Amino acid sequence: MTIKTTIEERVKFSEVDSMGIMWHGHFIKLFEEGRERFGLEHGLDYLGVHNLGFFTPIISSEIQHQSPLAYGDYAVIETTYFFTKAAKLIFSYKIYSKLTGKLACTGKTIQVFLDQSRNLQITNPNFYSQWKNENFPNE
Amino acid sequence: MTIKTTIEERVKFSEVDSMGIMWHGHFIKLFEEGRERFGLEHGLDYLGVHNLGFFTPIISSEIQHQSPLAYGDYAVIETTYFFTKAAKLIFSYKIYSKLTGKLACTGKTIQVFLDQSRNLQITNPNFYSQWKNENFPNE
Amino acid sequence: MTIKTTIEERVKFSEVDSMGIMWHGHFIKLFEEGRERFGLEHGLDYLGVHNLGFFTPIISSEIQHQSPLAYGDYAVIETTYFFTKAAKLIFSYKIYSKLTGKLACTGKTIQVFLDQSRNLQITNPNFYSQWKNENFPNE
Amino acid sequence: MTIKTTIEERVKFSEVDSMGIMWHGHFIKLFEEGRERFGLEHGLDYLGVHNLGFFTPIISSEIQHQSPLAYGDYAVIETTYFFTKAAKLIFSYKIYSKLTGKLACTGKTIQVFLDQSRNLQITNPNFYSQWKNENFPNE
Repeated sequence: MTIKTTIEERVKFSEVDSMGIMWHGHFIKLFEEGRERFGLEHGLDYLGVHNLGFFTPIISSEIQHQSPLAYGDYAVIETTYFFTKAAKLIFSYKIYSKLTGKLACTGKTIQVFLDQSRNLQITNPNFYSQWKNENFPNE
Repeated sequence: MTIKTTIEERVKFSEVDSMGIMWHGHFIKLFEEGRERFGLEHGLDYLGVHNLGFFTPIISSEIQHQSPLAYGDYAVIETTYFFTKAAKLIFSYKIYSKLTGKLACTGKTIQVFLDQSRNLQITNPNFYSQWKNENFPNE
Repeated sequence: MTIKTTIEERVKFSEVDSMGIMWHGHFIKLFEEGRERFGLEHGLDYLGVHNLGFFTPIISSEIQHQSPLAYGDYAVIETTYFFTKAAKLIFSYKIYSKLTGKLACTGKTIQVFLDQSRNLQITNPNFYSQWKNENFPNE
Repeated sequence: MTIKTTIEERVKFSEVDSMGIMWHGHFIKLFEEGRERFGLEHGLDYLGVHNLGFFTPIISSEIQHQSPLAYGDYAVIETTYFFTKAAKLIFSYKIYSKLTGKLACTGKTIQVFLDQSRNLQITNPNFYSQWKNENFPNE
């Protein structure tokens, strides 16, 4: 089961490389923007989670590039949350060119929960169990 | 068969996040710095390849984070070229904390060759075949 | 005489420093985003100008910081074009916190025109003279 | 009276824009690198000052660009500390191309002192008065 959200970001002059296309490393930033929007829309935002006493560092990222995104185009960022029983946040991403509709890249990130003392949480924090129950009642 | 090179980069104030550690997306930049140094040392640098008529875009990146890198520490970036018969550049990376010796992250990137018209090269460009013959005579 | 445009940008996690506020160097990026939006709205956009044969590099930037912008807040970027008889683009900027209304910083940039061979244009390019006539008929 | 320090940084692929030259906003990062090296060499480093209970935010930056820095070149960053009786840190910068020796840009930053509660310090923190006495005994 999954939940999805979509945002758009303009490709900025400061983000394109000498080939006039978005520098490959900046897609990680777009993944973060998609993920943050997801959090704000679905009650899993960084500041909210932080106020409950947890950090959610990325432990793994991957990107597969399919086609370039040129300056002046818009990145259409589709962010998908994947249900997991584990104390993890798993998101996948698809980024499209708004002008051509072509897939620019796909990706995936995995996050874990640390408490204030930066100890890894092996079991689900209460608020996150509850969030999963509310959003995925049949899992 | 592999060839390896190692460089150091200081963790900069502009690179750390609100937790005081390098923001996860910046490791992609460190991979690029390791790869560029490899190219300069071993005759596969970006400008040289470009002058021969080729671009080498990244088609895939992955990172696994093990432990944070704090402001003021140094990233020790170990870049390893992996031999492949394909018309690809495959690098893996290990980044260590200089202060603690701990592994911060591992990663891998794959690049392909495009010509000036940005057509994908299915077979090895001549200069690259020759480079592989010189550097990996037994493969 | 002036023309003004305003946009909003969310302060992103990747942009805040170890104090949890936007790193001072990123304001230059916000100035660029304001300037690009101005160009798109008023027919002076980068790609349009580029297609007419000109680059418009920044020759001078300045920023005065008044108060911090925290993660999760929005930067309200007010970009003002200043009329000049010279072959220059002069913009000033005011950036406000959306949450508090406080002024975060003010700034100013100056750009010149280069042709395709990157020669400085001492006199106004025709299209720019015309643009000024249309937008500032009384100057 | 002044003290000066010089470092070199390679212009990285991720830092150049679609014209193949360092994007103008990245010079702010080079100023910071010069300033940090100055701090480490002369006992005014960020972490040291922070451990004494102070933050030193930038309140003003300015840059004048003279000529571009191309990919593959090295920025030679000359950082100069200017003595002031005020509770401020004033630095000026000159950045040269290593390959051509040409001046790429000049700049200046001003910083103030905040205590842990982020209150502006009107008078010099003790450690800073002492630092000025040691380094500028005749002022």
